[in-house]
Amino acid sequence: MREFTEASLTEAVVKRIGRTPDARLKKIMSSLIRHLHAFVRETRPTEAEWAAGIEFLTKTGHMCDGKRQEFILVSDTLGVSMLVDFINYGRHAKATESTVTGPFFVPGAPDVPIGGSIAAPGTPGQPARVSGSVKDDKGKPIAGAVLDVWQASGEGFYDVQPQSNTSGGTNLRGKIRTDANGEFWFRTVLPVSYPVPTDGPVGRMLKATGRHPMRPGHLHFAIEAPGFRRLVTHLFTAGDKYLDSDAVFGVKKSLVVKYKKAKSGEWTVHHDFVLVKSGKRPRR
Amino acid sequence: MREFTEASLTEAVVKRIGRTPDARLKKIMSSLIRHLHAFVRETRPTEAEWAAGIEFLTKTGHMCDGKRQEFILVSDTLGVSMLVDFINYGRHAKATESTVTGPFFVPGAPDVPIGGSIAAPGTPGQPARVSGSVKDDKGKPIAGAVLDVWQASGEGFYDVQPQSNTSGGTNLRGKIRTDANGEFWFRTVLPVSYPVPTDGPVGRMLKATGRHPMRPGHLHFAIEAPGFRRLVTHLFTAGDKYLDSDAVFGVKKSLVVKYKKAKSGEWTVHHDFVLVKSGKRPRR
Repeated sequence: MREFTEASLTEAVVKRIGRTPDARLKKIMSSLIRHLHAFVRETRPTEAEWAAGIEFLTKTGHMCDGKRQEFILVSDTLGVSMLVDFINYGRHAKATESTVTGPFFVPGAPDVPIGGSIAAPGTPGQPARVSGSVKDDKGKPIAGAVLDVWQASGEGFYDVQPQSNTSGGTNLRGKIRTDANGEFWFRTVLPVSYPVPTDGPVGRMLKATGRHPMRPGHLHFAIEAPGFRRLVTHLFTAGDKYLDSDAVFGVKKSLVVKYKKAKSGEWTVHHDFVLVKSGKRPRR
Repeated sequence: MREFTEASLTEAVVKRIGRTPDARLKKIMSSLIRHLHAFVRETRPTEAEWAAGIEFLTKTGHMCDGKRQEFILVSDTLGVSMLVDFINYGRHAKATESTVTGPFFVPGAPDVPIGGSIAAPGTPGQPARVSGSVKDDKGKPIAGAVLDVWQASGEGFYDVQPQSNTSGGTNLRGKIRTDANGEFWFRTVLPVSYPVPTDGPVGRMLKATGRHPMRPGHLHFAIEAPGFRRLVTHLFTAGDKYLDSDAVFGVKKSLVVKYKKAKSGEWTVHHDFVLVKSGKRPRR
């Protein structure tokens, strides 16, 4: 009869999944089992600590619904999402850098014509005008690139958050297409710093570990064009006091942009995005 | 401005929790961050694989309610619960060994007098009589020890599972106290092998990794007495075909007991439990 010890258990569990048909799944699960066991061996949790872990995961799951993704927030705040970002997109000479998607992306944003606004009338915040271009790494403009943009309001809430003032409608989201010259512009409000949601398990974790929940102001972009890799990135607002301590570790210097105040009082910024051709492997 | 690389990110995240007031929490979280990042570095998940992981956790959370604990089932089926058991209870000369609690323990089981039955009339299964004693490691009987017992029916379901025939009531659970001689006996049905719940994420994980979901037949015990460590254990049914491949790795040879058929047709078993005094550290 098989019987295990603290020493023999881990490899017995790995052996148990030895007949996993999918080789990639087998590799991931074997690695997961070994790292999970290594974590337990190192920390030697009491039964009560183990139960607290089970409860944290359970409450995190219960916090998730169609509008809230608390597990992505766990991944973001523990730096896992950025690690996945580094591994997948990596760095490419000349190309715009990527950063985290975050928990607030919603597919199916409305189309917004060039020059239109993604902010519904009355959206809290200072008016801003964002312009730029999408090019390849040789400087050639990409016409018809789709920029899926989303952001929080001047009060720091996304439309899907219960605190937003958008009464359930879509706001501060839009899909904009570059024109024949690869250029675009749209109106919105100035992105400001805001806390990630703190009313769930992640908020309690941040507090218990002495961390603030703030992210520097930023505008999200997911940019797609045929023949190019999808780029998920932010433009961070220069001068924000949280650029050095983003709660999700997402800041990259090249993504910080300076808004200028026009005579009209509108904040303006211009940024040229450079996409990577499909299939290009990152440099490390 | 701080900016991270794949190489520098992990220690930056650990540093971010450097002001955690609780030293134990700081140690656990630092270890969690490093092991989680090590897992990601080793497996290098694609964005789609990372998203599948988030979805697995989310669905596991959504499966949990007052009667179902899918995260405990994840912990059990990946051997983590047994590792925590080894670390905490360990081995003690002469004392009864421990094993997993599992996801089906419910506090507040009804008191059952010695000689009573934990099985409601009509419970599917073959009649059984379980007797034994509770002693200290010097062989001294422990009077008034409380044995909290629970098990699945002869059809392999616990009362809290939707497939059970108990129409929402408590069944196959009870708290029994040892008499002045440290002895007890009660009636029930013979424990048989059964699958852990397979209608959720854990079931899909077991199938995808080529594993069966079966546990050998067993009767759960949580035994408490003043001055002694609480013992959580099973008695496994000898001869069960799944003793060698328990889906949660919980079998220990010393916990396998042989039921004998009495002339009345009732299965009978006798087992003497030995408790460890409070504060005794396990030998490894």
